[in-house]
Amino acid sequence: MQRKSLAGAVCPIARSLDAIGDWWTLLIVRDAFRGMSRFGDFQQSLGVSRNILTRRLAGLVGHGVLERVAAADGSGYHAYRLTARGRGLFGVLVALSQWGQENVAAPAGRRMRMLDRAQRRPLRKLEVLAADGRALGPDDVVMSRAV
Amino acid sequence: MQRKSLAGAVCPIARSLDAIGDWWTLLIVRDAFRGMSRFGDFQQSLGVSRNILTRRLAGLVGHGVLERVAAADGSGYHAYRLTARGRGLFGVLVALSQWGQENVAAPAGRRMRMLDRAQRRPLRKLEVLAADGRALGPDDVVMSRAV
Repeated sequence: MQRKSLAGAVCPIARSLDAIGDWWTLLIVRDAFRGMSRFGDFQQSLGVSRNILTRRLAGLVGHGVLERVAAADGSGYHAYRLTARGRGLFGVLVALSQWGQENVAAPAGRRMRMLDRAQRRPLRKLEVLAADGRALGPDDVVMSRAV
Repeated sequence: MQRKSLAGAVCPIARSLDAIGDWWTLLIVRDAFRGMSRFGDFQQSLGVSRNILTRRLAGLVGHGVLERVAAADGSGYHAYRLTARGRGLFGVLVALSQWGQENVAAPAGRRMRMLDRAQRRPLRKLEVLAADGRALGPDDVVMSRAV
């Protein structure tokens, strides 16, 4: 696809998009949050070819979102684990999950949602807040260039 | 790219990714939040070909994220405006912006950040909260299938 490279973008949204690679790659991160770590498990969950998955996993490792470690079972296989930086994507996934739940219909009679593990209740809706705690909407925020 | 279709996915994260199309498309949404509405302005901001931009804008209109309206200047051109559903992506953009600021280096000496318009101060870090207000991390949340 023809587009400007986003890697050195001034805007942190653009840099984030570049680091994650594409939308689809974020589903690998989702699965890693669900405890998945093995190549074959990601492949089965996502239904993609080995080649493509290999490339996307390498990209996430290269950007420091996942790290490659020896499999816990001592099998000699390797596994993929979220780094601290990868775990930092939690809020992005929650925001996407809440938007999808509200705005994009689930298949009839089947849906999935995020629950608080302790109480098995849905999460509170994410709120964008000012430093002093005021709730902010899109019109209350500006993107500002700073040196 | 070979992959399962995400349109009817049980997982709301996957459905969201399908509705937005790809990472890059989200930069159109970012620009719309910044007040951009004209084809030529999006094209200049994003550096993409007319063909590709036309297709992505049509996709966002088709998914109800943007709507096509007559340009305010009466020129007969049309403009693109965020719908309520599109404005609902605000939290996703804030989450991505905060992650990018913390995790992906900006070009030397140049960065951009989101500020509270009223006080020109950075936003508070997004927090994932349980229904009762407890702060939740990735390990405190489960994805649960519900009928």
